[in-house]
Amino acid sequence: MFRPVLAIAGGVGGAKLALGLSRVLDKSELSIIVNTADDETFHGLHVSPDLDTVMYTLAGLSNIEQGWGLEGETFRFLESLERLGGDVWFRIGDSDLATHIRRKELLQNGYTLTEATKYLCKQLNIDTNIIPMSNDQIKTVAVTEEGELPFQDYFVRRRCEPKISAIRFEGSETATPSPDFELALKNSGSIVLCPSNPLVSIGPVLAIPGVREKVRNFKGPRIAISPIVGGKAIKGPAAKMMTELGEEPSCVSVAQGYIGLIDALLIDHMDDQQSKKITDLGIKPIVTNTIMETSEDKVRLANEVSNLLENWYGD
Amino acid sequence: MFRPVLAIAGGVGGAKLALGLSRVLDKSELSIIVNTADDETFHGLHVSPDLDTVMYTLAGLSNIEQGWGLEGETFRFLESLERLGGDVWFRIGDSDLATHIRRKELLQNGYTLTEATKYLCKQLNIDTNIIPMSNDQIKTVAVTEEGELPFQDYFVRRRCEPKISAIRFEGSETATPSPDFELALKNSGSIVLCPSNPLVSIGPVLAIPGVREKVRNFKGPRIAISPIVGGKAIKGPAAKMMTELGEEPSCVSVAQGYIGLIDALLIDHMDDQQSKKITDLGIKPIVTNTIMETSEDKVRLANEVSNLLENWYGD
Repeated sequence: MFRPVLAIAGGVGGAKLALGLSRVLDKSELSIIVNTADDETFHGLHVSPDLDTVMYTLAGLSNIEQGWGLEGETFRFLESLERLGGDVWFRIGDSDLATHIRRKELLQNGYTLTEATKYLCKQLNIDTNIIPMSNDQIKTVAVTEEGELPFQDYFVRRRCEPKISAIRFEGSETATPSPDFELALKNSGSIVLCPSNPLVSIGPVLAIPGVREKVRNFKGPRIAISPIVGGKAIKGPAAKMMTELGEEPSCVSVAQGYIGLIDALLIDHMDDQQSKKITDLGIKPIVTNTIMETSEDKVRLANEVSNLLENWYGD
Repeated sequence: MFRPVLAIAGGVGGAKLALGLSRVLDKSELSIIVNTADDETFHGLHVSPDLDTVMYTLAGLSNIEQGWGLEGETFRFLESLERLGGDVWFRIGDSDLATHIRRKELLQNGYTLTEATKYLCKQLNIDTNIIPMSNDQIKTVAVTEEGELPFQDYFVRRRCEPKISAIRFEGSETATPSPDFELALKNSGSIVLCPSNPLVSIGPVLAIPGVREKVRNFKGPRIAISPIVGGKAIKGPAAKMMTELGEEPSCVSVAQGYIGLIDALLIDHMDDQQSKKITDLGIKPIVTNTIMETSEDKVRLANEVSNLLENWYGD
């Protein structure tokens, strides 16, 4: 039985597939584990960009064109904050701000990040298990030519311009997976690595002590969807980062990074000719249309993933 | 020399006269000491309603009709917070929120409330010294028939409905005036008690150890403007509170509360017939038009105050 499915996701790409999977699978059949190593404190508030993107996407509230934030968002708060000399490079909208304020309130009231996320999901009528990878603080740090930069500084303020030489996950040595993530690892029948940045979205999840090992030794089918299509990242800096770290930005590099962790990799028709190289790495390439623009795309790809897992043992 | 003037103010009424005084006097001739005992923590942020009302009024940003908050304010944050199960009875607008977030940030960075206020005023191009009465936490508590209520709970959430039997200022025993307030008390030539609620706006300022004594022994002229006109408060619950505390809501009661602290009380034409009673209390009644609706009203009353003080020794 491939169900329940444990999906690991970062921001935009992960959220898209998560939305598809949530339409295809029942609540009890799906756990979405979300990267929290991008989390940052702004103005004393706890901002969880990937959790928010997944939440907003599943609640039907996200700004689809932009890829982050809320549809119809306003920025009155930020305009006023700028007038008051506050830092405004991280664009927090008026509605979005409510999420960060409420989350901070819940955390201060003793909720874990998992409990706070569950609470927020309930309020947003999200009927899918969205689970932070950890309740502990893990922070992605970009080691760049300009020195070390916290992820949001690198990603948003500096727009990924400084060349990186390494990525590290501060705090991951002593972190543990969230109890719900542990439980999902134990009870799930399959693992899906969403088309998220392998370095800074999936990477931090795998860096939590014990997780890589558990994925490696997982009994059920494990598949990933390549976020690199035709040598480019569909969204975000994955290709640029891979290049700077000495990897060729390609679905083959994605496969390479996941050796031992996945059994199959969904790649796009555009990368058809890479199939053999992926097979040579001991991973089964599955060529399909991986680009998700419309809702239908997301459901179609999720259905494909679901069918693939369902027929896994019948192959 | 009656200058500089030390004005003590609460919210709306105080802000009106403060605006007038700021137009009539130079920056170096005026210190506005503001009540901070209404301050409350909402969503982990430091909200200073009276400081904000005075700041917004002097910056020309206030919602004049409403008496609090900002003109053209939006409430997107609050709507979203409500959806997320947050408390929304205290109406924080999107722009206003920036003030509270920035103030909290400054306080967390080690600013005193005085320094934070100075910073915010500078950002808002306010050229008047707005000084919190204290950098220490003092909290007005309404002792009501339903038990003790923090001021904002009583004032905003419960709309002053529960009958009060007393008012107390938690923390005032151990508080000190802000250093700038101390300095203004030493260097000013006159004191003006603005037409603010004597119980919960002026009261907390006088309750800071040493302040009442210094006002009592002050060498220069001290005047107040009655916020009670024709037995009613121009704005807010002053009359209702006075009644519940066994006082007649009148300018005479205001005078009574200020015995030994003021030399003259400006009362409205409407209260002309109360003059003798005020004289009998050893306070000089000055009958004028005390109601401030337009900007001109505010400047006119401020001019009158200024002229009164200027001619004090020539009388």
